[in-house]
Amino acid sequence: MTATTQKIEPGDTMAVSPALAQYTRETILGDLWKRDIITPRDRSLVTVAALIQRSQPIELAHHVALALDNGVKPSEISEAITQLAFYSGWGNGTTAVAVAQQVFAERGIVEDQLAPASVELLEQDATVEANRVAAVEGMVGPAFGALADYTTSVLFADLWLRSTLSPRDRSLVTMSALITANLPAQIVFHINKAMENGMTEEQVAEVITHIAFYAGWPNAMNAAVVAKDAFAKRKG
Amino acid sequence: MTATTQKIEPGDTMAVSPALAQYTRETILGDLWKRDIITPRDRSLVTVAALIQRSQPIELAHHVALALDNGVKPSEISEAITQLAFYSGWGNGTTAVAVAQQVFAERGIVEDQLAPASVELLEQDATVEANRVAAVEGMVGPAFGALADYTTSVLFADLWLRSTLSPRDRSLVTMSALITANLPAQIVFHINKAMENGMTEEQVAEVITHIAFYAGWPNAMNAAVVAKDAFAKRKG
Amino acid sequence: MTATTQKIEPGDTMAVSPALAQYTRETILGDLWKRDIITPRDRSLVTVAALIQRSQPIELAHHVALALDNGVKPSEISEAITQLAFYSGWGNGTTAVAVAQQVFAERGIVEDQLAPASVELLEQDATVEANRVAAVEGMVGPAFGALADYTTSVLFADLWLRSTLSPRDRSLVTMSALITANLPAQIVFHINKAMENGMTEEQVAEVITHIAFYAGWPNAMNAAVVAKDAFAKRKG
Repeated sequence: MTATTQKIEPGDTMAVSPALAQYTRETILGDLWKRDIITPRDRSLVTVAALIQRSQPIELAHHVALALDNGVKPSEISEAITQLAFYSGWGNGTTAVAVAQQVFAERGIVEDQLAPASVELLEQDATVEANRVAAVEGMVGPAFGALADYTTSVLFADLWLRSTLSPRDRSLVTMSALITANLPAQIVFHINKAMENGMTEEQVAEVITHIAFYAGWPNAMNAAVVAKDAFAKRKG
Repeated sequence: MTATTQKIEPGDTMAVSPALAQYTRETILGDLWKRDIITPRDRSLVTVAALIQRSQPIELAHHVALALDNGVKPSEISEAITQLAFYSGWGNGTTAVAVAQQVFAERGIVEDQLAPASVELLEQDATVEANRVAAVEGMVGPAFGALADYTTSVLFADLWLRSTLSPRDRSLVTMSALITANLPAQIVFHINKAMENGMTEEQVAEVITHIAFYAGWPNAMNAAVVAKDAFAKRKG
Repeated sequence: MTATTQKIEPGDTMAVSPALAQYTRETILGDLWKRDIITPRDRSLVTVAALIQRSQPIELAHHVALALDNGVKPSEISEAITQLAFYSGWGNGTTAVAVAQQVFAERGIVEDQLAPASVELLEQDATVEANRVAAVEGMVGPAFGALADYTTSVLFADLWLRSTLSPRDRSLVTMSALITANLPAQIVFHINKAMENGMTEEQVAEVITHIAFYAGWPNAMNAAVVAKDAFAKRKG
């Protein structure tokens, strides 16, 4: 074991891989981020979600700052972190908190720019929710009553209704985290939810293409296969 | 890229997301951890296993310390790390070593409180083991003789028989790591093994519910579906 | 939360788990790495790929240094990092850059030992590539034209043809990363590609056995099941 510690400064890509530096400059920054099917603000939300799911503090710090530059509000970053604590695990949430806190401090962002713990809740569609509850109960059965109850009371009657991140953006970051983690069953559900919350087929496909670079090609290809089926089913 | 480095202090959740702080306080600490279907000691073992699988040093340091407070012995933490090196990869094991070493040093825990390299081995059930060997050989075939041999000699004739962590607790941490990593085939095997080692259906369901918070909702839902089938088959 | 930060020095395994230290010494270093079915250079490439996929900086620093000792050239490490940025995500690539940069600096490795951004490209087999393009189009359909186009132009008409890492070694690191991430569909494709690039069935099986230790037993068992089928299909 060398004496190297985990304290790692962002590297100079040119000093290790000129090819990787060129792909970053020409393919990612010079091409991918300029495609106008989704906005830079959307790309920032997608990238931040992928990095929270992967728990990569160095890249996340860069992309939280870029997200602010691209028009994501501090309260929206705060809310996206909370959303993803539930969908990708509490440890990913607290790591993202540590990173965002540093970026917020550098930018002079203070607490009244964040969403408070209690905010106005959006109205819930009772029919959609009843269908979801029935689907979960059918899936996990009576042995998982507590899990189903938390899902209903904490996630769908509270978290998803918080008005400080739009349902469409909440869907966007959730879907992005699930694609990054390669979770096909949940990707289907959340692609449909994202489209009910206003995203188009073309935009969903672009999100998956964007994630190819940030979560690796295989996760994007797997999501594309799942999305293709979901698109076909929606058309009936 | 900002000048931020990977040296990250645990963040102040209130300074980034008052909502996440409230969910932590009210839902996780005020509710989940107080449910008495499994003990706080069990919840600590489950959480530590999830964090070792995810390789999240900051959270892991907190939860190794809490596990000691909840009655997990240093020798049991040491043994759980060794177990999970095999089930979640050596790099996760050595990261956990680095974290636990700091916590042990803060607590004044010294080497004679750890399990030695060689300990008394429990007796093996020859029939159960013969069935397992046959199942693995059927699954991977003759091309994987070396992998099957290591599985038999290192894992099942040695690691699993070490008496310094009870078979029930060894099952608990293994099952928890597998749920966190979303590995359905192995989750089935280790849910059954956990129940043979004394856990009840209700306790397994509670472990999965606990992990929803620490490894994200989708992994828990996937495990619940798998567990539901495993429970049904056991009733046969 | 304790005051522990994420700045973690490599731990002393003996101070936490004498058993884990013994398994490392006797099973991994004293046995696994000495098996001659693949070379130590191959084992280093496999291990580095697994650690890049897992984004584990401490272990990666150790294994990048060991890879150099085992005959992997700096330009090959650089190229493997670039390859895996695409297959495991950009954040894993930039983390590996940060780690490799430190190791290169310690070893006095300078930029003219790296591959330049533009290198000679190998010739492409037009029939194989046409089949691949058709397979991807069939899989993802017209909604994913941009993803399919990037796959063709950036990955298969450029990255895979860079002559600074042999196709066989490129296959080796890609396959290793995919096994580590438990991606069955892609593992099949890349086992076949690795064998077309010169690897034998016995060597592929040994790579999977090696990864059991570095990415955890379940990922290796899953890959073995997939590989067994792939081997059988190749024999027709």
